[in-house]
Amino acid sequence: MPERKKLAIIVHSGTLDKILCAFILGTTATAMDMEAHLYFTFWGLNMLVKGALDKAGLPATYKHLEEQLKKKLGEMKYPTAYDMLKRMKATGLLKIYACSPSMEMFGVKREDLIPEVDQIAGAAAFLDLASTAETTILV
Amino acid sequence: MPERKKLAIIVHSGTLDKILCAFILGTTATAMDMEAHLYFTFWGLNMLVKGALDKAGLPATYKHLEEQLKKKLGEMKYPTAYDMLKRMKATGLLKIYACSPSMEMFGVKREDLIPEVDQIAGAAAFLDLASTAETTILV
Amino acid sequence: MPERKKLAIIVHSGTLDKILCAFILGTTATAMDMEAHLYFTFWGLNMLVKGALDKAGLPATYKHLEEQLKKKLGEMKYPTAYDMLKRMKATGLLKIYACSPSMEMFGVKREDLIPEVDQIAGAAAFLDLASTAETTILV
Repeated sequence: MPERKKLAIIVHSGTLDKILCAFILGTTATAMDMEAHLYFTFWGLNMLVKGALDKAGLPATYKHLEEQLKKKLGEMKYPTAYDMLKRMKATGLLKIYACSPSMEMFGVKREDLIPEVDQIAGAAAFLDLASTAETTILV
Repeated sequence: MPERKKLAIIVHSGTLDKILCAFILGTTATAMDMEAHLYFTFWGLNMLVKGALDKAGLPATYKHLEEQLKKKLGEMKYPTAYDMLKRMKATGLLKIYACSPSMEMFGVKREDLIPEVDQIAGAAAFLDLASTAETTILV
Repeated sequence: MPERKKLAIIVHSGTLDKILCAFILGTTATAMDMEAHLYFTFWGLNMLVKGALDKAGLPATYKHLEEQLKKKLGEMKYPTAYDMLKRMKATGLLKIYACSPSMEMFGVKREDLIPEVDQIAGAAAFLDLASTAETTILV
């Protein structure tokens, strides 16, 4: 059986524009029968804390557009970020990694994280995976 | 005939520092006889609207340096971002994609875009391309 | 002898969150006996100026968390960014490139840079390297 292609994404950002970008790419990848591997680090790691994804906003540069964008996404009946994550998860092709050094840095515990997290891992596990992925990006 | 190497860039940002970075890499790639594939999404998509590239500024963190940087680029007789895009285009090795979901999100129509856009495409078309590219980055 | 795997990172940002991300990945890569190639451009290039790494702060979006994060890193006895760079360098597996067009843009001279810089190079040298790397990201 041929191996599936892999998309690896380092989610460093914790803002809605980057999270949506990562999740749209991940959703598309799983729909194409690719594996999606998302490694959440730094501000991104904080988005794995229960309830955090629903509160994600825009970065300082675009803060003035936040309300307008959220209204538009609502009108388009766009799925929320957490809904997108759960849909990707349901395909069985998404793997979510929480960066262990970031957890220590921000005082985040395992029980604070959403249950969809597959693995708490350091950078070595991710680099190993990424070196076999067709595409790796950082958002 | 051997295939050309490919550089794929997701242009997520709409600020001058990231646009210049993408365009310098793209220009260099085409000069090296590589294909450059630029997929404009989110704030980057908004930079494909006619006239937008000429108004690109710096992000909040560096806003105070904007005037100084633009003055310096002028003194260096640096080509403008739009000039760089047109020069890359003239090599025949640049392909520009406009992200269709971003167009809907921001209410941008086909006729609003600069004529250099090759294709309006979703993430699937880009991931397909990226999985064959030697190098893919997101700015 | 088999070639080592390569991690290539374009360091575009000059903020502590992105610098730490790049240096943790680089440190991990060299510990895994991979080569790490770091190309510093734009705001990142400015971080190669002597003394600059020690002054790196957070971007506008997270500025209010800067003092708290630096205090936490101190409590964790986390190595400073410059210490991490020197440790990577000591493995013999790190190569540091300073982007020549950025140096001109920001008026930075060779003698302003830390001695750990291996090569002043344009984008072509880096793209050549990146096209042979298993993983390339931009921070």
